Amino acid sequence: MRAVALGGGHGLHATLTALRRITAEVTAVVTVADDGGSSGRLRRELGLLPPGDLRQALAALAAAEDGGTLWAEVFQHRFGGTGALTGHAVGNLLLAGLFEVLGDPVAGLDEAARLLGITGRVLPMSTEPLEIEAEVTGLENGKVSRIHGQVAVASTPGQVRRITLRSPARAGQPPRACADAVDAVLSADVVFLGPGSWFTSVLPHLLVPGLADALVRTAATKVVILNLVPQPGETAGFSPERHLDVLFEHAPQLRVDAVIADRDSVPTPARLRRAAAELGGRAHLATIADPGVAGRHDPDALAGCVREALGLTESDREGNQWP
Amino acid sequence: MRAVALGGGHGLHATLTALRRITAEVTAVVTVADDGGSSGRLRRELGLLPPGDLRQALAALAAAEDGGTLWAEVFQHRFGGTGALTGHAVGNLLLAGLFEVLGDPVAGLDEAARLLGITGRVLPMSTEPLEIEAEVTGLENGKVSRIHGQVAVASTPGQVRRITLRSPARAGQPPRACADAVDAVLSADVVFLGPGSWFTSVLPHLLVPGLADALVRTAATKVVILNLVPQPGETAGFSPERHLDVLFEHAPQLRVDAVIADRDSVPTPARLRRAAAELGGRAHLATIADPGVAGRHDPDALAGCVREALGLTESDREGNQWP
Repeated sequence: MRAVALGGGHGLHATLTALRRITAEVTAVVTVADDGGSSGRLRRELGLLPPGDLRQALAALAAAEDGGTLWAEVFQHRFGGTGALTGHAVGNLLLAGLFEVLGDPVAGLDEAARLLGITGRVLPMSTEPLEIEAEVTGLENGKVSRIHGQVAVASTPGQVRRITLRSPARAGQPPRACADAVDAVLSADVVFLGPGSWFTSVLPHLLVPGLADALVRTAATKVVILNLVPQPGETAGFSPERHLDVLFEHAPQLRVDAVIADRDSVPTPARLRRAAAELGGRAHLATIADPGVAGRHDPDALAGCVREALGLTESDREGNQWP
Repeated sequence: MRAVALGGGHGLHATLTALRRITAEVTAVVTVADDGGSSGRLRRELGLLPPGDLRQALAALAAAEDGGTLWAEVFQHRFGGTGALTGHAVGNLLLAGLFEVLGDPVAGLDEAARLLGITGRVLPMSTEPLEIEAEVTGLENGKVSRIHGQVAVASTPGQVRRITLRSPARAGQPPRACADAVDAVLSADVVFLGPGSWFTSVLPHLLVPGLADALVRTAATKVVILNLVPQPGETAGFSPERHLDVLFEHAPQLRVDAVIADRDSVPTPARLRRAAAELGGRAHLATIADPGVAGRHDPDALAGCVREALGLTESDREGNQWP
């Protein structure tokens, strides 16, 4: 089963960790609009793709349940101290080096995947660093404000209404999709959107025209995985249905086949079922929250719900069969 | 043939590049007293062994003649720009990450060697960062000055008379040798000292008591490879013989079997032969300078002279036979 997961950050990590339990043919398509932390520093200093979300996706596909391989651990290791390297993850620096030496982030990511012993692939949604702009209300009385950059959007005290993506390097041009990511979506059996920071990790993929077009055209089953809780800042007060509405507003042509949500995170299941049906799909509710860690999906439970939503049986697990 | 090469920087790189032509069983034992550049920054920020000379040795053993493997290239790649990462070699950052994750520089170097596909080993002369102190004349009228740190010693306008090594972490204690480096010297068939910055890359090994003791006790053939030219700063005006005298002054018990020098770099061969004989060995003069690059050894010519000095024939080359 060829599965493609679109997203970024912790949300994508959750999807990938669950998908590894179902199939070895996983491709992650990762947002490249981060401008914060170690990634933001590397992006500004070296003009490269922000590597952090890409690194997280590699680590998610590499990590064995017993703590992961040495290289996955080295990749995720962050330097301490109080100097110039503080907070940089070793994997971010290594990806930056690979990108510079090879001159091609896709080739660099494939080499990193080889190092980590990954069978799947990690791809950027675009091979150029992108910038998020958001229309936000509630900051100035009755006015729509425009704010720039992932960190600013993710932490705004206002209400995000709509985002757009731009390529700082090619002003006025639409963002270019990574060709391998488009191919992966078109040839996938199933495509996953979410969970994750809705405006800054999930929706950006729909604003890269080549990728949005592939998502509309692909014959793959399309699955949306909703967040467990609204995020302070970008989705404060959002109901599960509102998440789907926002998705539709950013990609009106997109239809989905299944919407997966945690049972306890859905106050009004009937409303979610209706919203899912409006997008062409069916809602699948199950207990998929990690009881030990607030806001985190339990990988085994999420994998179980994905199997159920796709009509896979437990016996499909080992052979990676697509029914 | 088990060969051990002691040194650091470009000099060690030359020896290792030549030795790779003779045997696959090469162990580099590398100085860890660097306090300059990328290495110095990492050492100060993170309290780790300075990785630069270790990285150079790994690269020398990894590089194929056609430009080397991808990972060797990534290891040697330095970040540009004007930010916090400027000048850091990717391999230095990766070694720092391995040292921190594994908590053991020897294990980290072995992992890096595996990544680079090296059959030999690269070991630090000590598993703790060390500091060079030098007694220098010519700075203050008629007085002996003490200067600290590799960069200061290597670039002093004075005349370096003698160096000592100290462990900044364990004041008053002698530097501790890396146990694997001691074992490598004791079980070697041949041990090489030099070429390289005489006071800051070659002599430091003789000031780690455990390592100096192993060099005196080992049954290995001991070969000194002299520099092509005196280095401005630490060995300005030094004759080839003076290099050997300084070696003897720092390790009076050490005997050597062979002294290799470039024919055109020895003004008075008879004097060098006498100085070599005083150390128990024989001088081997040949044309080993790279005609294209001033101050650099030609690897093929150096390998040829090493074979001659060791009594190896050309046919020993492939099978790595020790006669």
